[in-house]
Amino acid sequence: MTPNRFSQRMNAMKSSAIRDLLHYATLPGMIYLAGGLPAPESFPVEAFREACNTVLAEVGPQALQYGTTEGYKPLRHCIAERMRNQKGVACGSDNILLTSGSQQALEMIGKLFIDYGDIVVLESPSYLGAIQAFDLYAPRYVTVPMDEQGIIVEELERILQIVKPKFVYTVPTFQNPSGRTMSLERRQRLMALVEKYDLILVEDDPYGELRYTGEPVPPIKAFDTTGRVIYLSTFSKILSPGIRLAWVAASEEFIRKLALIKQATDLCTAPFVQYAAYEYCQSGTMETHIQKIRDMYQVRMQAMLNALEKYFPKEGVSWTHPEGGMFLWVTLPETVDVEDMLKEAVANKVAFVPGTSFYVDGRPHATMRLNFSNATPELIDEGIRRIAEIVRHRLSGAPAAGAS
Amino acid sequence: MTPNRFSQRMNAMKSSAIRDLLHYATLPGMIYLAGGLPAPESFPVEAFREACNTVLAEVGPQALQYGTTEGYKPLRHCIAERMRNQKGVACGSDNILLTSGSQQALEMIGKLFIDYGDIVVLESPSYLGAIQAFDLYAPRYVTVPMDEQGIIVEELERILQIVKPKFVYTVPTFQNPSGRTMSLERRQRLMALVEKYDLILVEDDPYGELRYTGEPVPPIKAFDTTGRVIYLSTFSKILSPGIRLAWVAASEEFIRKLALIKQATDLCTAPFVQYAAYEYCQSGTMETHIQKIRDMYQVRMQAMLNALEKYFPKEGVSWTHPEGGMFLWVTLPETVDVEDMLKEAVANKVAFVPGTSFYVDGRPHATMRLNFSNATPELIDEGIRRIAEIVRHRLSGAPAAGAS
Repeated sequence: MTPNRFSQRMNAMKSSAIRDLLHYATLPGMIYLAGGLPAPESFPVEAFREACNTVLAEVGPQALQYGTTEGYKPLRHCIAERMRNQKGVACGSDNILLTSGSQQALEMIGKLFIDYGDIVVLESPSYLGAIQAFDLYAPRYVTVPMDEQGIIVEELERILQIVKPKFVYTVPTFQNPSGRTMSLERRQRLMALVEKYDLILVEDDPYGELRYTGEPVPPIKAFDTTGRVIYLSTFSKILSPGIRLAWVAASEEFIRKLALIKQATDLCTAPFVQYAAYEYCQSGTMETHIQKIRDMYQVRMQAMLNALEKYFPKEGVSWTHPEGGMFLWVTLPETVDVEDMLKEAVANKVAFVPGTSFYVDGRPHATMRLNFSNATPELIDEGIRRIAEIVRHRLSGAPAAGAS
Repeated sequence: MTPNRFSQRMNAMKSSAIRDLLHYATLPGMIYLAGGLPAPESFPVEAFREACNTVLAEVGPQALQYGTTEGYKPLRHCIAERMRNQKGVACGSDNILLTSGSQQALEMIGKLFIDYGDIVVLESPSYLGAIQAFDLYAPRYVTVPMDEQGIIVEELERILQIVKPKFVYTVPTFQNPSGRTMSLERRQRLMALVEKYDLILVEDDPYGELRYTGEPVPPIKAFDTTGRVIYLSTFSKILSPGIRLAWVAASEEFIRKLALIKQATDLCTAPFVQYAAYEYCQSGTMETHIQKIRDMYQVRMQAMLNALEKYFPKEGVSWTHPEGGMFLWVTLPETVDVEDMLKEAVANKVAFVPGTSFYVDGRPHATMRLNFSNATPELIDEGIRRIAEIVRHRLSGAPAAGAS
């Protein structure tokens, strides 16, 4: 068929590198640190089964009918309450929109704001899924460098003096891919900039509940008194990603616009799943369950940090020390070809994500993302040992043993 | 906030008239013939509860994990098999993509094909949800008139001699809004045109299983030997709309492109729901259940046809005689202001959808859509009686009794 059958946006679309790595995940003996999956053993299967039964027994047919575009009102109310009590965000149920995962929220934000060529500001590196969602609407990206405290606010202000972005996108807490968390002081300064330049800030917070060490920091949305922050979070990491249920917290104006878009996009998020999630929230087991997940991942994160310390070379190599989340980020000397290293790693039955995917500059980057939520401490130790061996040989200029 | 914060596509977006009518649905005593909802008493609540339990007991955590973008392979296989056996469509599991309702499939088709100003051909009247989905990508519409046999193929060919559309969109079976079904001969001639002009045809078939009288007609996709038809169907009308589960059947090339889009749009449709639907399909109760739905709706459709015959004026008034589906379409003399009539109807506690919403020409139309799936035969009789009274008075020039 003639190629111009398709829309122009299809020319730029390519499959996610992470998705393309997925076929390695099921190879026998593979230690898969490339994904971003929660541990399946962390899912509250039995409590969710009870929730489904209660919904179908007590709500019955209404839970299987079409629902409102904004979402099931009691669930919106319950999320708003949790946002107020646990995150210090002033909001009510009219500030909450349920979505089919945060990916859908990101895509709808693209639809809401981006015309071809509009500017979107990203932190660098940035979450690949967000880049893919925004790419559908063909913006120009301007990136802001980060340090261990998150976005460097002075650099952002230098940019804002020159360009007017449609919005700034950030994952300030246990960032995907870097694991970094923006400090309290940075958050407040970023919010001040958002006010000063009349910006919209998209705060993506899928991992906020997964803190294992250090002091909790409120979301940037907690400092938003003028409705400029659109906040996203999800049930994927605290209940299950397989129910595809997430939410947006924003001003009523933004929620109304996003609901208009959602109506045309998929009518509504599965009411059955919303009823079941509500029932699960009401069951009183959620907070205990989240603590169980934290305990499990803390051990895994520590296992990865210990293994890096034990096996990795230190010269010219560094890694982040997250206080939560699911990822950790390793920076190698610029001369290392990380894509090529991945081939060797896969031959040695271990996989990671080369950092290049998380940048929009099209240049190679000698960084890698490592996931610690979806492997046991023993496998993490062995996986890091294998990667370390390859890194050592690369740095010494000799090929690693066992490479194909 | 400054209005140009938003993308240009937001300028044209408005809420669906049908959605705006929804607040009437819950008023006490309202006979609501304006919706497009299946009867909740038709949902297989108990069988679906068993399916959920089986999935969570037997598949367990994996059903709550992220899934592949294309969908759960055994479900794709099962849908392909049903498409082959029951609809005569040659397809395998690689030709099937699961979506979060057909609305999402329509929106993704918009993304895949439409650049600003591209031409899309619609039958007139056409399904409002499709218009809303395509509107996101700002096409120009060219419409083809219909008669009782569906799209008038000669009219379509006259159009194709002048313009090259990105695709033609049709609901050939028990159309929403008109209830009409395209005849076998028209389907074959339409397919021949699609070949001749190297077109893409989007065949939306949510109601195909809901035939109550007359002879079954194969979907147009059954005549597609060159991969030019993208076929959509859904679990919404045969299981539940509240699980938001539908599918696309198309060439592998189109499925691959749509999967790329879906990955950026919402990663995947809820695996838990897919596992449960698969389990339900395997339980062996589905075919019996679909027959139950048909029996229920046949009585309702007949009640509406009987009531129209009994109460409605015949002079200058006509209505369609569907053989299935959920809707019936009434045409009044052009002088009647149907929007104004709706206000009077609502005051008399009955609601319908004015036909104007289903046209893209921006002109008023003296037509109305009546839904018969979601009210009992008794309520349908009384609702039609009330509407008929208003129509009679409008046609005689006097205001109806009881109007506010």
